[in-house]
Formats: sequence, C-alpha cells, structure tokens
Amino acid sequence: MSELNRRNFFRLSGLGLAAMVGRSALAVPAFDQSVPVKSVSGSVGIASYSLRKFDVDQVITIMEKLHLQKISLKSMHLPLDADKETINTVLSKMHDHGLDPSSAGVIYMKSEDEVDNAFRYAQLAGFKIIVGVPDYSLLDYVEKRVKETDITLAIHNHGPDGMPYPSPFMAYDMVSERDNRMGLCLDVGHTVRAGFNPVDVIAKVGDRIFETHMRDVSSASKAGRSCRPGEGVIDLPAVMKALQKVGYTGSYTIEYEEESDDPLAALAQTAGYLQGILAGL
Amino acid sequence: MSELNRRNFFRLSGLGLAAMVGRSALAVPAFDQSVPVKSVSGSVGIASYSLRKFDVDQVITIMEKLHLQKISLKSMHLPLDADKETINTVLSKMHDHGLDPSSAGVIYMKSEDEVDNAFRYAQLAGFKIIVGVPDYSLLDYVEKRVKETDITLAIHNHGPDGMPYPSPFMAYDMVSERDNRMGLCLDVGHTVRAGFNPVDVIAKVGDRIFETHMRDVSSASKAGRSCRPGEGVIDLPAVMKALQKVGYTGSYTIEYEEESDDPLAALAQTAGYLQGILAGL
Repeated sequence: MSELNRRNFFRLSGLGLAAMVGRSALAVPAFDQSVPVKSVSGSVGIASYSLRKFDVDQVITIMEKLHLQKISLKSMHLPLDADKETINTVLSKMHDHGLDPSSAGVIYMKSEDEVDNAFRYAQLAGFKIIVGVPDYSLLDYVEKRVKETDITLAIHNHGPDGMPYPSPFMAYDMVSERDNRMGLCLDVGHTVRAGFNPVDVIAKVGDRIFETHMRDVSSASKAGRSCRPGEGVIDLPAVMKALQKVGYTGSYTIEYEEESDDPLAALAQTAGYLQGILAGL
Repeated sequence: MSELNRRNFFRLSGLGLAAMVGRSALAVPAFDQSVPVKSVSGSVGIASYSLRKFDVDQVITIMEKLHLQKISLKSMHLPLDADKETINTVLSKMHDHGLDPSSAGVIYMKSEDEVDNAFRYAQLAGFKIIVGVPDYSLLDYVEKRVKETDITLAIHNHGPDGMPYPSPFMAYDMVSERDNRMGLCLDVGHTVRAGFNPVDVIAKVGDRIFETHMRDVSSASKAGRSCRPGEGVIDLPAVMKALQKVGYTGSYTIEYEEESDDPLAALAQTAGYLQGILAGL
C-alpha cells in the first residue's frame, strides 16, 4: 500500500458506519471509497520577512492562525550575530509551538567574514539551506564552505532593480558548474518582474532550484508589486506544475511585501491558494 | 477575441517594454506571451452565517480584507422582517463598499406566511436566489411563488442530523419534477457528513444545483465538523471539477461554522484554496 493510499484509507476509515447511519430512506449510493481523497502535497511556508513588523511571539501567533509550520527566518526574527544561546531560545520557542524553522534568509554576503558568519549561524540553528546573495567574487569561498558544512546555498534572484542577481539565469550561470549544493531560491515574483516567464525558467534551471519564493505580482515589469494570488499576472498553477515536472520537492515559501501592518488575510489567502493548486495537481 | 483572451491581452500589455528593461546581459528568453495567464474563474463568496458574531459594518470590513465581493446574507445581517427602508440601508452600505449581496439564506419556511415573507424579502432586496428549507407540505405553495416572482429556490441539504433534507437526494427528489427554478444549494460538507460522495451526487443532481456551500469536514460522519480545506476528508478539487463538468456557473460560497470569534484566517485560507483550485482547473 503506497503512502498516499495508506493515508486515504486512514482518512476514510469509519465510512461504512457513516454510510449506514447517514443514508436517507431513498435508494442512493453510499460514499464511494474508490474516489481518492487528496491531501495537500508539498509544503507551503512563510518567509518571515513578510512578518517583519512583528516580534517572534507575534510571528508564532500568526503562524498558528495560518495553520502553517514551515518558516524561513529573516534576521529581524533571528539576528545574524546571535550567539548559540539566543538561537536556541528562539528556535526552542518556535519548536514548542509546532513550527519548523528550516531555513534562513535572505542573507547578503559582501565579505568572507559575512560568509563565515552566515554559515556559523546556519550551523548553530541547524538550517540545511541558506537563502543568500553572495557577491560574485565570494562564490569560490562560499563553495568551500558549502563543501565543509553540507549546507545548501540557494541564491535569491531579485528583479530588474536588484543587483547582483537581477535574474534567475544570472544566478544559475554562476553556480551551474559548481558544487551541486549551490543553486537557486527561485523568486517567482521577481522573475516575472524581470520580464521572464517562470515556466521557461524552471524548465531550464530546474535541476538547481532548492527553494522558492512564491507570490503574484501586479505587472510583469519593474513597477510590478506583490499582490494577492489571482489578482496579478502570474499563472501560479502553471508555475507549480512546472516545478513538480522538474521534481521539485522543496518548500513553497510565501514572501509577500505588501500589507505589512496587517498581513494575515493576504498570507492566509495566498497559502490557501497554493495549497488548493497543489491539491488539484 | 474571446473574453479570456481579451483579459490576457490586457494583463500582458506592456510586456515588450518590460522584457527589454528587465532582461539581463545574458542571452535569455523574454516572457513568453503564448503561455496563458489564467484568471480565477467562477466566483468565491461567503455565507454571512460564517460571520454571525459580527455586525454589518464589521462584516464589510472582513469582506474587504478577504478581497471578496459575493456574500449570501443570513438573517442576523438582514432581518427577515426588515422593511424596504432597512433593506435598502443595509444593501446600499454593502454596495458602497463593492460587495455583491446576491442571495439570502438559509431561510426556514414552516408556514405559507413564512413562504410569503421570504419571497417578499428577496424581492425587496433584489435577490435572485433564496437558499431555503421549506417544509415538504409547502412545496406546491413555494412553486407558485417561484413562478410568480422568477426567484430561484435552492434547497439547502443538511447532514444526517438535519431534517427535513438530511441529504441532497432527498431535496432533489422533491423538486426534480417541479419548476426548473427549484433546485439545490448543495452543501458539500453536510453531503459528506451524511455519507455520500459529493462527486457522485453532483453527477446525479447537477442539473438542479443553483448554489453551493463549500468547506472541508473533519470526518465523513455525523460527528464531522467544519475544518480548514485540506485538513479534512473532502477532495475539493474533485468536487469543483465535478461541478464544472455539469456546467455549474454559480457561486462557491464558503459556509464555515468553526472559529466563529476570529474567522478571518480560516475564511481567507478557504477562499484562497477554492480560488487556487479554480485557477488550476
């Protein structure tokens, strides 16, 4: 019995009784167990930058309201210079509330010291992925640290206004011949803002996508801003289908810059939207 | 140019410039206009019973946070005995905030007077649909009022604990030979609680489904309670696919009984989930 079937079996158990108790007097079919009950595949999470106006306790409350566990931490919630004790305190509190803080970012690296610190921080926190933006000149040094620590570097592409990686191809070209733990955090919104079709991008760089930042944007241009899913220009079902096609198994991490004072509805709706797409794939 | 293509064209306009401005120095493909940008088809709304702890002003605020327009009004937000002036005041306020209060319910009818009042109320409010539960003995009388007013009656099925329509088949059998403006508000959660597979139900009664109440439930039994989509037993993508297959063009109306003191996250997540499924169909 496959994992999926086992889950379906479990979720449908007790149906025989339900069908008998619930059946009306008319001759009607009982609940048909042959129709699969889908569960949400993949994993939707939040980039804590979306919650930058809130402290750690508030972030936990919001994550609980969202019924989400996965969170990628930005420095305002876990300072980059935090010592082991601080890191343990913050992560323990999150673990106690069922959260899964499994990556950090976006971390900018402009010197070898900053690279060293990013890997120190990730090692202390137990993160397997750093979502990072190292200067080009540091990529040899970063590769050395990736090999030493077995921590994955996922370079975050920005939009047309975001050097040094204004496009996902720029990032891909810089790492595709390097250690295979160096790749991309594909920011779908910025990809579209930079004028690229994310479906094409995913087909071309899919072997190196380790994280994603998901959202819709209002226009496929530099002026494009984050918006609620379905209200912008991105065909998110096509994007997620393309990611599944290249075997992507990582997080669908919502990074949403707008409505920062009161982001709950937008984050919940976006999470639901991505979960609904996944359920329908 | 079809409506869909017109919309896509509009949404993608300006891309030529964006592609030029945003393109990095590398030789990469520009945004491919041949990939369709999907918009959310169908229409997700809220049954105001989900917001029964809030007054009309608060309901408007919540609907604005949800970015939803369609709302099916329950009596606590528009009393069944309201006069024309009260109805106009409430609906004008909603219209001023962009809402679309297009149906009412659930309205129980246990006498001819209650039937008369329900149709009076719907006529004054301009609702084209009454989501109702008339006693069996009143169906001839209801049919007469449907013919006179051209208002559709959508009978709401309850679960195994909800007479007189504990199953959608019970409701269907009562109206299928009557005026074709008499049919169902298919409550998907109660359908599953009653032990029926909604996909089968939709295939059989689809010609008379005029409204839907959407949600997931925690188990396919009388004990099943509303829960967040994807956390329960219902395969909502299969349900929505079945509805589209029978040509359903009505609302996907969220009726969610739980978390009634603070329903924003649940309603936003559910709305997003349904919108995500629709976008992917």
